Amino acid sequence: MRLFYHHPLVASARKVRLVLHEKRLAYDERVIEPWRESEELLGLTPAGELPVLVDEDQAVVSDHGAITEYLDEVYPDVPLIGRTPGERAEARRLAAWFDDKFYWEVTHQIAGEKLIRRVSANAAPDSRALRAGRENIQIHLQYLTWLKERRSWLAGDSLSIADLSAAANISLVDYSGDMPWEQYPEVKEWYVRVKSRPSFRPLLKDTIPGVPPAPVYTDLDF
Amino acid sequence: MRLFYHHPLVASARKVRLVLHEKRLAYDERVIEPWRESEELLGLTPAGELPVLVDEDQAVVSDHGAITEYLDEVYPDVPLIGRTPGERAEARRLAAWFDDKFYWEVTHQIAGEKLIRRVSANAAPDSRALRAGRENIQIHLQYLTWLKERRSWLAGDSLSIADLSAAANISLVDYSGDMPWEQYPEVKEWYVRVKSRPSFRPLLKDTIPGVPPAPVYTDLDF
Repeated sequence: MRLFYHHPLVASARKVRLVLHEKRLAYDERVIEPWRESEELLGLTPAGELPVLVDEDQAVVSDHGAITEYLDEVYPDVPLIGRTPGERAEARRLAAWFDDKFYWEVTHQIAGEKLIRRVSANAAPDSRALRAGRENIQIHLQYLTWLKERRSWLAGDSLSIADLSAAANISLVDYSGDMPWEQYPEVKEWYVRVKSRPSFRPLLKDTIPGVPPAPVYTDLDF
Repeated sequence: MRLFYHHPLVASARKVRLVLHEKRLAYDERVIEPWRESEELLGLTPAGELPVLVDEDQAVVSDHGAITEYLDEVYPDVPLIGRTPGERAEARRLAAWFDDKFYWEVTHQIAGEKLIRRVSANAAPDSRALRAGRENIQIHLQYLTWLKERRSWLAGDSLSIADLSAAANISLVDYSGDMPWEQYPEVKEWYVRVKSRPSFRPLLKDTIPGVPPAPVYTDLDF
């Protein structure tokens, strides 16, 4: 059986879970706390970082970007990186935008402080980081609004890794209760569509001991 | 004509230049200082970040990872991401290792301080950052040695984006004169092979006004 190493608080691993579910690839899961060094993980990949996939043929694939590309190559039935080179470049550009830029400017500052810091160190969030995250998110949601006014999905006419990467990150900010939904109705409309997909259900069931999700997190009609 | 926006001090843009030259794709270049906001760049991509490629058909591709994948898809004659899904996953994993991990732990700390800070702000390097970079590089060079003992190129039997990403980053550290070559003969042997390729010649001609390269930088027999 395919085995996927992840943690509900790791945004890039959430993206890969969405990819796996969109492609209807069954897997066993192994949840590893990313703030502790894991011998098991280091035995699989020198970075020792989540996520890691051990595929059915025992191929070990690590790095969220490499796993995503691998899954789209080996299981192309539900293509998630677009069809033409131009579409694929756009999906990858936007996925990287959310995996890197949004992650460091927003997810890390908000969910990193309110969720990971609480669970890993039982510590209160750093208020400067939180403030920065809440400020930074505005420009990203304005950009998402701009994209949504022009396209049905973020990178074009069909769902892609751009949507999954964005939704994975936003879902963690939403879990914290920090999404300013009322100011961004277009983004909300898009997120409701992603959140209503069967692939999203496992993520909505995530609960972190000691840090319950904001009520809006599981609500499909918020 | 294909147009490539880059700067000699941007590691990920150096990687893409190597990809372009390995694939023998001619291009005009536009050098942009990455520490100033560029209207021209912002007109091409919302991130406003280097590198950006405007291909012959005027397709605009940004994000170094998306450009690399695009070039390998559209110009597959000289494949640089391996052939099997396993090889491709390994090349991508290692390219990401050098683009992200090595970059932030080493290149940014050493070349960012000694070259970019000097050129952009005429300021001296932060000695703590430099010390961190020189310490961090050891584990990376040990890992490179481990890889080299097992493979002819970093990701397997042929040159790939893993080698180009590693060499692009290392070339900036080498420009600063901070590569501890004598301690890592296997890494040196691999780097000499990459550095001797025709694709590397344009990089060896890079000179940054006010910050001459270390003598070893252009020497093929150091």
